[in-house]
Amino acid sequence: MMSSKNVAASHTEMSQIVLPNHTNTLGNMMGGQLLYLMDMCAGVVAQRHSNRTVVTASVDHVEFSSPIKLGDIVTLAGHVNRSFRSSMEVEINVWAENPRTGRKTASNRAFYTMVAIDEELRPTIVPTLVPNSPEEQSRWEAAERRRQLRLVLAGRLKVSDAHELTHFLLENVNKADV
Amino acid sequence: MMSSKNVAASHTEMSQIVLPNHTNTLGNMMGGQLLYLMDMCAGVVAQRHSNRTVVTASVDHVEFSSPIKLGDIVTLAGHVNRSFRSSMEVEINVWAENPRTGRKTASNRAFYTMVAIDEELRPTIVPTLVPNSPEEQSRWEAAERRRQLRLVLAGRLKVSDAHELTHFLLENVNKADV
Amino acid sequence: MMSSKNVAASHTEMSQIVLPNHTNTLGNMMGGQLLYLMDMCAGVVAQRHSNRTVVTASVDHVEFSSPIKLGDIVTLAGHVNRSFRSSMEVEINVWAENPRTGRKTASNRAFYTMVAIDEELRPTIVPTLVPNSPEEQSRWEAAERRRQLRLVLAGRLKVSDAHELTHFLLENVNKADV
Amino acid sequence: MMSSKNVAASHTEMSQIVLPNHTNTLGNMMGGQLLYLMDMCAGVVAQRHSNRTVVTASVDHVEFSSPIKLGDIVTLAGHVNRSFRSSMEVEINVWAENPRTGRKTASNRAFYTMVAIDEELRPTIVPTLVPNSPEEQSRWEAAERRRQLRLVLAGRLKVSDAHELTHFLLENVNKADV
Amino acid sequence: MMSSKNVAASHTEMSQIVLPNHTNTLGNMMGGQLLYLMDMCAGVVAQRHSNRTVVTASVDHVEFSSPIKLGDIVTLAGHVNRSFRSSMEVEINVWAENPRTGRKTASNRAFYTMVAIDEELRPTIVPTLVPNSPEEQSRWEAAERRRQLRLVLAGRLKVSDAHELTHFLLENVNKADV
Amino acid sequence: MMSSKNVAASHTEMSQIVLPNHTNTLGNMMGGQLLYLMDMCAGVVAQRHSNRTVVTASVDHVEFSSPIKLGDIVTLAGHVNRSFRSSMEVEINVWAENPRTGRKTASNRAFYTMVAIDEELRPTIVPTLVPNSPEEQSRWEAAERRRQLRLVLAGRLKVSDAHELTHFLLENVNKADV
Repeated sequence: MMSSKNVAASHTEMSQIVLPNHTNTLGNMMGGQLLYLMDMCAGVVAQRHSNRTVVTASVDHVEFSSPIKLGDIVTLAGHVNRSFRSSMEVEINVWAENPRTGRKTASNRAFYTMVAIDEELRPTIVPTLVPNSPEEQSRWEAAERRRQLRLVLAGRLKVSDAHELTHFLLENVNKADV
Repeated sequence: MMSSKNVAASHTEMSQIVLPNHTNTLGNMMGGQLLYLMDMCAGVVAQRHSNRTVVTASVDHVEFSSPIKLGDIVTLAGHVNRSFRSSMEVEINVWAENPRTGRKTASNRAFYTMVAIDEELRPTIVPTLVPNSPEEQSRWEAAERRRQLRLVLAGRLKVSDAHELTHFLLENVNKADV
Repeated sequence: MMSSKNVAASHTEMSQIVLPNHTNTLGNMMGGQLLYLMDMCAGVVAQRHSNRTVVTASVDHVEFSSPIKLGDIVTLAGHVNRSFRSSMEVEINVWAENPRTGRKTASNRAFYTMVAIDEELRPTIVPTLVPNSPEEQSRWEAAERRRQLRLVLAGRLKVSDAHELTHFLLENVNKADV
Repeated sequence: MMSSKNVAASHTEMSQIVLPNHTNTLGNMMGGQLLYLMDMCAGVVAQRHSNRTVVTASVDHVEFSSPIKLGDIVTLAGHVNRSFRSSMEVEINVWAENPRTGRKTASNRAFYTMVAIDEELRPTIVPTLVPNSPEEQSRWEAAERRRQLRLVLAGRLKVSDAHELTHFLLENVNKADV
Repeated sequence: MMSSKNVAASHTEMSQIVLPNHTNTLGNMMGGQLLYLMDMCAGVVAQRHSNRTVVTASVDHVEFSSPIKLGDIVTLAGHVNRSFRSSMEVEINVWAENPRTGRKTASNRAFYTMVAIDEELRPTIVPTLVPNSPEEQSRWEAAERRRQLRLVLAGRLKVSDAHELTHFLLENVNKADV
Repeated sequence: MMSSKNVAASHTEMSQIVLPNHTNTLGNMMGGQLLYLMDMCAGVVAQRHSNRTVVTASVDHVEFSSPIKLGDIVTLAGHVNRSFRSSMEVEINVWAENPRTGRKTASNRAFYTMVAIDEELRPTIVPTLVPNSPEEQSRWEAAERRRQLRLVLAGRLKVSDAHELTHFLLENVNKADV
């Protein structure tokens, strides 16, 4: 197993046409159907990074901004933002595409925490992620802050020990995106 | 339309046997499959409370603690915690049941924000929720704090205006569950 | 394994939104789709009562009275009426709910005979059912008459030996519901 | 529309391989999955006979004798036994086929009552069925007796008015198959 | 295992109603959905002829002439045209049936090459096919020519060694159907 | 609508984990399931190139070389090779990826002919494809030869009028890939 990997190595894309059973009575894709696809995409990304069986440990808060219509092309793109000891933060971006106009509309973004496990179902070490661009570096740093926020919200980390998170919050008061 | 409703009026339960296609290669239910069912359950709850078409606006951070196995009975129970103008916070609790022992294991809890919409797809007013017990009252209060946290994290509310949230945090430093 | 159980111990409820693939070209739920869900529900009930693997032995005559529409909430509720040596009579009641009005319409009732089996796939003893109310007692008695009717119709019991059934029929000539 | 049709005109056959999702944890096809296919087959038969939209009115008592295994070929064959004013009795026979030995095992037989409806969803007249062989004639006669039994059991016909049924029962005391 | 079989022994028929999820936004059955069913049908045919596990080796060029509509009855009929050492050419014919008029429209024809395999997943001998009518004889001969065409197009057979194919082409210049 | 487009504009990728219901009893993905996904992918490609509703007109001979296993990641990549008046040749390449080793195995290649249609379901003009590299140019030329071969095999073009095809064949006798 390689001890480090870059972001491109696990990039995953999924396109799909929205079929009748994916939609509610308004003809819009149901949120749960999208969450199902996003989790599947996150699983492929994490398997590609770790070459291990993976399980979903958590998914961060997901907002459903604009509806995706029956017949639209929905595309999911996923990559690893950062790997920790046995877990990986996987970012999934979703957009919808009107097949008549070709116009793409950003629809969702979500952060999944995936854990690699071995044959005895115990968490197992994954390759480190090496960011190769300023954008990848910036996502790599944000992933640590989100990890601290998850631990704080779960009561498993004191706010006073969440250094990167608190440092960032103090420097970016009132900015929308942690 | 009734202008207020109690919690029991929209209580919803779903039981299902975990089938092969719901599972990964470990024979455990995939997280995305569960998120799909939870969203469906939240939709039924919100329709029952509002008697309106509803859409999923967001789902809070979800953790997947213990695996659910092929052949297990998975049960979802949902209710409205609080209604706001046109939105409702719906809580879904999931547990797995071993059919041989009958033992039930808590598996997940999630908070969905569902929005009621009218024929022109505009948000529309929903009945207020009247809590009828100390437990319902306590969930009703926590729902407001979670709403403020969502708005703060989304950059749509200043921390200084999130009164219930900050008051609660000051009184409950280091407690796990916001 | 407990040697006796009450009705509440295996009560099961399933709610689901009727999706496009569940419906015929009239937009009504297909009978076969409903029978599929009812069987699944009966299986959960019988597993909960017996803590055993169960198989469907038979389903009694089922009538489909009123149509269930695309987008309706369909709810199934099941419980054990009576257990015999290795089999259980499970009653499933189905109703549809118009999500706009909240009006519920009874849709179906069916009686499934489920058999508990052991590791060698042989029928195995199940806990007796203890009725706890006049209504449960009355369903418990009717279950025996239906069992006799099944055996008579299958040619496995002489009418002259179906005591409870014939006694009841003589006392209730022209009543609809055996 | 033809005012009469023969049995062959609506004969329908469906073969399918039993896939993982059709089976329970024993690797046997679930009863509900089979009922779903049988209803679908009955719908095709009734549409072919009536050239109308059809709905399932009822299905008679169904027994599940021998299990159908994962990987087996399951075959359903259906035909109309008799048509009444706007309804048809459809008989479905099911057998399983072991793909390695080619051995076929009878699995189920069921009688569906299907109703033809017009554009306003009202029951509408269907062609009469003309039996063309002694076997078809015998099924045609039995269908009337089963119809009377259904009406008697449903409390919609007095036993004293079920002439064909009572006449047959008197002549065939203790025979298994009504 | 029988060393030879006739065509009737593996004849297979599948009828199905076209459901919403089978269709594109025009309400027509998607080509891929039909190819899925055709492959399933070819698998049943080849298992019935060989009594072996079978895999799809190839499918010849398939044309989709006329659309199949939502609510139509689609019927697939398949049989073996010829068996070679361990492979079989299976022909699948598909037609759509308008349930209101009963009118049947030929929709597709495809030739699948299926290979029988043993427990070690190696190709294994299958019974020879004995044609019993001029039509079966003619399909049996055409199957050899198609096999040669496949090998020529795949670069695994020189045109000069494709005797039956070239002989036929010389005698039938400009005829449409090889 | 743009009158010309490049290849990249309609490039489409789909990744998916092979689930139990996609596989036969050997645990290998069924050919028909793969054909279903390939057709779906070809549909997305053709919609992206044409911004029109598209239908599958045909798929060329497809070979299934190496099996894809349960749990593998299967990836489809599609692009337009050439557009004709109202039709497009879409090439789909499929490979399987072992999630434990990351090893990718080429699995299938297929050529779909997709037709763009307008609101009256008549074929409608699509943008021309502009090849931008020697490889795209070479695929663009091969697409014309395959079109001629399809027409010849369908009896709709005389061999003597299939100039590009015959010229190529004369220059490349015995080469495998037309």
